[in-house]
Amino acid sequence: MKYTLGELASRTGVPLNNESYSGLEIEAVAPLQSATAGSISFCANPKYKKHLAQSQASAVILNETLADGFNGASLVSKNPYATYAQVAALLSPPDSPDAEIHPTAVIHATAKIGNDCYIGPNTVIEAGAVIEAGCLLVAGVYVGKHSRIGEGSRINANVSIYHGCEIGKRNIIHSAAVIGADGFGFAQDNGKWIKVPQTGGVVTGDDVEVGASTTIDRGAIADTVIEDGVKLDNQIQIAHNVRIGAHTAIAGCSGVAGSTVIGKYCTIAGMCTIVGHIELADHVHVTAMSLITKSIKKPGSYSSGTAFEETTSWRKNSVRFKQLDVISRRLHDLENKT
Amino acid sequence: MKYTLGELASRTGVPLNNESYSGLEIEAVAPLQSATAGSISFCANPKYKKHLAQSQASAVILNETLADGFNGASLVSKNPYATYAQVAALLSPPDSPDAEIHPTAVIHATAKIGNDCYIGPNTVIEAGAVIEAGCLLVAGVYVGKHSRIGEGSRINANVSIYHGCEIGKRNIIHSAAVIGADGFGFAQDNGKWIKVPQTGGVVTGDDVEVGASTTIDRGAIADTVIEDGVKLDNQIQIAHNVRIGAHTAIAGCSGVAGSTVIGKYCTIAGMCTIVGHIELADHVHVTAMSLITKSIKKPGSYSSGTAFEETTSWRKNSVRFKQLDVISRRLHDLENKT
Amino acid sequence: MKYTLGELASRTGVPLNNESYSGLEIEAVAPLQSATAGSISFCANPKYKKHLAQSQASAVILNETLADGFNGASLVSKNPYATYAQVAALLSPPDSPDAEIHPTAVIHATAKIGNDCYIGPNTVIEAGAVIEAGCLLVAGVYVGKHSRIGEGSRINANVSIYHGCEIGKRNIIHSAAVIGADGFGFAQDNGKWIKVPQTGGVVTGDDVEVGASTTIDRGAIADTVIEDGVKLDNQIQIAHNVRIGAHTAIAGCSGVAGSTVIGKYCTIAGMCTIVGHIELADHVHVTAMSLITKSIKKPGSYSSGTAFEETTSWRKNSVRFKQLDVISRRLHDLENKT
Repeated sequence: MKYTLGELASRTGVPLNNESYSGLEIEAVAPLQSATAGSISFCANPKYKKHLAQSQASAVILNETLADGFNGASLVSKNPYATYAQVAALLSPPDSPDAEIHPTAVIHATAKIGNDCYIGPNTVIEAGAVIEAGCLLVAGVYVGKHSRIGEGSRINANVSIYHGCEIGKRNIIHSAAVIGADGFGFAQDNGKWIKVPQTGGVVTGDDVEVGASTTIDRGAIADTVIEDGVKLDNQIQIAHNVRIGAHTAIAGCSGVAGSTVIGKYCTIAGMCTIVGHIELADHVHVTAMSLITKSIKKPGSYSSGTAFEETTSWRKNSVRFKQLDVISRRLHDLENKT
Repeated sequence: MKYTLGELASRTGVPLNNESYSGLEIEAVAPLQSATAGSISFCANPKYKKHLAQSQASAVILNETLADGFNGASLVSKNPYATYAQVAALLSPPDSPDAEIHPTAVIHATAKIGNDCYIGPNTVIEAGAVIEAGCLLVAGVYVGKHSRIGEGSRINANVSIYHGCEIGKRNIIHSAAVIGADGFGFAQDNGKWIKVPQTGGVVTGDDVEVGASTTIDRGAIADTVIEDGVKLDNQIQIAHNVRIGAHTAIAGCSGVAGSTVIGKYCTIAGMCTIVGHIELADHVHVTAMSLITKSIKKPGSYSSGTAFEETTSWRKNSVRFKQLDVISRRLHDLENKT
Repeated sequence: MKYTLGELASRTGVPLNNESYSGLEIEAVAPLQSATAGSISFCANPKYKKHLAQSQASAVILNETLADGFNGASLVSKNPYATYAQVAALLSPPDSPDAEIHPTAVIHATAKIGNDCYIGPNTVIEAGAVIEAGCLLVAGVYVGKHSRIGEGSRINANVSIYHGCEIGKRNIIHSAAVIGADGFGFAQDNGKWIKVPQTGGVVTGDDVEVGASTTIDRGAIADTVIEDGVKLDNQIQIAHNVRIGAHTAIAGCSGVAGSTVIGKYCTIAGMCTIVGHIELADHVHVTAMSLITKSIKKPGSYSSGTAFEETTSWRKNSVRFKQLDVISRRLHDLENKT
């Protein structure tokens, strides 16, 4: 795609620093340092001012401070990264094949496919399922009985969606993700496990993105719920009956155990573990590889774990950790003595 | 499905509190609070007595203590949750499509398919593989050469089973799981890695459940073994030559490294790491996100890690952790002085 | 496959201890203890000398020290495990079906398939993709537009490779792996997330192995790069714009966050978290379940976390961790007093 800088300004609602640049042709986004003529970069960090001065980009998206001392073409934005996202989406729109139902797709007679859908090779759509208008199912996608995929959603290759799940509008689900597998529910009976049927479903809101190889289990009785605008990275596990509040983002490899409720506008970094049956307030942030074992009622940032160090010293310190309660008591005794 | 309460009592072997209720029609399970007429709930926790009193459920599964003060219809069980599991299985049996070999399935001439199997669309079954009677392969399943799927197993969409693996009877394997990929075996040769052929297989016992996106690697020479009744949640990694003892359950995102042996009746919580070449006794329990680096010979519960806190204080404490051995020595010196 | 011991010696370049054994027929590898006639074992650890003496193996691969006191047939190697890897590869070569394009494969007219490829059932190859000579795509593999799979690569069942990715020569990619899904890139806009198009690709070098269910995201603008000889185990997450140096190995369940650069010849154990935008030098080793939050400039071994213990004592110690900074200050005060 090609746009003039003036077109990009009007489509993003972000002003040009100088109207004389409005005819410049832009055809790609590029980093400041490797940009060439025809490309647009962005810079929001004063640290990179030097790269900005030397960049060969035809135009740069800047905040007001940086734009001040810059003579080249720029779009002057309050949120340069968000403007960059918009510009990149215009210049590199996702691939949209023409509407088609591939002859190798296996679609049950009672399933409904909306207008303008691309249903790729080897896709399987079971009885009673509904694919709303404008969906893209890339290839090898499985949609179980009576599941529904909302308007304009993009389901990548080899995604599995079990029966009775509701995917919202404009969802993006990446390859190998699994929506609606059975929650991990078993009753103990003399040491053996009896499977508890998982009769709930999974419901996702609008504008949800689900990363590659991420799994969202169906609810035990009620549904597992992912609210509007939630972004889940790759390799995440969401257990049965979890609820993730709107616009929360969770980074790769994290796991949320059963029946836990996470608030809105939270961010959970990578490899975190949130145990089951707890509640996190809105605007809670958890740093990488933390274990959250209790409800958090106060917005803020939370962490667990230890800082890394060389293994030889770590061995000594990690053993001392097992004496920490005793160390604390000994210190207390000593304080009482002196 | 619909049953009278009397039928549910006789099929589960659990008595009704009052025979006059035996004709009540039950058609669904539901939580105490949202239950309506025609549904059955369960309650095992005295904490929820109030919800019990107010529930609109037609009947409730209770333990003897709770049943004592309850006038409505109830099934009185020593293990209400297990009874609930049985009742839910009667009311919500898993979907069982009629036996069929879908025309798009690709089945080698030398593979054998037992009676009453459903072999779904785009399933691929290679030479010499055996699918025993009553199996359900949903769609897009891959079964490698000479692998065997035991009677009555259910293999969900997009599961991959490599060659030479043996799946027991009544296994449930969820979508995107991978059974029998190569173990991570490499020999060092001047800084480069030489692949060590992984010539063993994977053997699972009867009544094993494998979660979505869980991976169980084939053995290096001997087999990787998952014993009867083991339940594995989603996103678990089981490395080559591991053995998991019967009726052990492992929660999501945990990993077990090569050649480790885990006993029977263990529970491993989510995101745990069990290193390689160690042994865990029967009845060992590991709490969430723990790192187990040595064999455990004594049954009991084990943990590692730190409690979470606000990030600002965590930063200070986690840095102090690196001084812990020194702190301990300084304390010792001080004790000697005073 | 069957070889004489003499043939194995000449093919591996490793001498026989006694030429009189060169006619021995070998047809399998086996562990010392369960080996039978016709099989070859290896032993590099003096600890297993007893098993060596009692083994029924027809021949054993040994280092010079162990070979010294051993009268049976042996191959005497400076690196017995590497020699074992070579011998096992000769005796158990990977299955190589005859070249074929399965009639159910869906291959775009503009895609190119090299000589001697096996393109298995239900494989989908999109427009402009190139599959070089000698590749094996097992079944249900998806290859997006304009991606390229290098010569002699083996792509297992249900792997998804997005558009615009470059896979090197002799790569092995295991089932359910996903190459080139969108990186986790979003701009904040008043609490909502705007998707940042991920316009880079994924490039892997030669001789790379990617484990089952491992995900390697495409770059945001530039590519995500996996250099020659890198070995990735199962369930690993590699985020956008990461670079992994040549001959580095990463064990299962680890995650590397965006834009991080890992050096050559590193080893990262299982369940590690490497945060984003940092750099690890060559020859860095990280032990299991460690969190690396800063760049590491010095080769060596690094760790974080605590040693495991019984849960009852762990509870006390993990709570004390939150007082560690205070404990340290109290100790300091006390030292000043005495």
